[in-house]
Amino acid sequence: MGLLAAGIGAGIAAIGAGIGIGMIGKGAVESIARQPEASGDIRGAMILTAALIEGVALIAAIVCILLVFFA
Amino acid sequence: MGLLAAGIGAGIAAIGAGIGIGMIGKGAVESIARQPEASGDIRGAMILTAALIEGVALIAAIVCILLVFFA
Amino acid sequence: MGLLAAGIGAGIAAIGAGIGIGMIGKGAVESIARQPEASGDIRGAMILTAALIEGVALIAAIVCILLVFFA
Amino acid sequence: MGLLAAGIGAGIAAIGAGIGIGMIGKGAVESIARQPEASGDIRGAMILTAALIEGVALIAAIVCILLVFFA
Amino acid sequence: MGLLAAGIGAGIAAIGAGIGIGMIGKGAVESIARQPEASGDIRGAMILTAALIEGVALIAAIVCILLVFFA
Repeated sequence: MGLLAAGIGAGIAAIGAGIGIGMIGKGAVESIARQPEASGDIRGAMILTAALIEGVALIAAIVCILLVFFA
Repeated sequence: MGLLAAGIGAGIAAIGAGIGIGMIGKGAVESIARQPEASGDIRGAMILTAALIEGVALIAAIVCILLVFFA
Repeated sequence: MGLLAAGIGAGIAAIGAGIGIGMIGKGAVESIARQPEASGDIRGAMILTAALIEGVALIAAIVCILLVFFA
Repeated sequence: MGLLAAGIGAGIAAIGAGIGIGMIGKGAVESIARQPEASGDIRGAMILTAALIEGVALIAAIVCILLVFFA
Repeated sequence: MGLLAAGIGAGIAAIGAGIGIGMIGKGAVESIARQPEASGDIRGAMILTAALIEGVALIAAIVCILLVFFA
């Protein structure tokens, strides 16, 4: 039962990170195209929010790796 | 049963954080592109709301880690 | 059964908080970009509504933590 | 069975409150940006409607807490 | 049970990476078309966010590969 959850949970976490960081990346490249001189501020906000999503997704992945070995 | 919930719950929490912080990050980079001189206020609002989402998602991740070891 | 609910419930609560606070955060950063001189009022409304969502999501998380230890 | 309902019900209540208060908060901050001099009236309507959603969500959460201890 | 999860989880992870990197790539090519002289900054933001998604998706794929051998 834990093994079933490990694979599907890791996949769902990848969907979350994909959609979230995808929205940020899309907004960032369009914003840089619109206002190239603000690219420093835009890149800072982009990295900060993408890192927050990445953090949660990696914790979810670690939970799934724990499930593979402990379940 | 608890192990099943641990993996899937962690994945669902990552979806929540991904979509939520993704919306904030997308809005933030587009707003900085529109009004670069307000980037300080925008960054403050961005970090505050992203941190609130991160808090709930991390608590959900901790519940899932508890489930791995206690279930 | 309670353990199954704990993980999935915590994940669902994170989706709720993510989408809700994400909408508020997106609206807030776009509003600050549109009217930077109203950033104080906007920040006040943003924090108030985000805190209300955070309250419900944290209560749901506490219910899930109770389930881990009492079920 | 009651324990299953407790966790998932609390999560669903958080989705309801999150999306509902999120729509109100998004509308409120955008409205304050559009008409800053009406921010008092906007804040009043925002708090009133958000409090009504919060009330229902908290009652749902209390039902779920009752389920943890009585089921 | 673990073998079932390995296949489905790898597929779901590919959905996540596909949608996420797809949104970034779409935004990037449209942005380069709009502002060709900013293509360096756009390419940098594109590679960075796509790599973050790729990281989570690869970890999910590794979890699924582990499931094939350990389940």
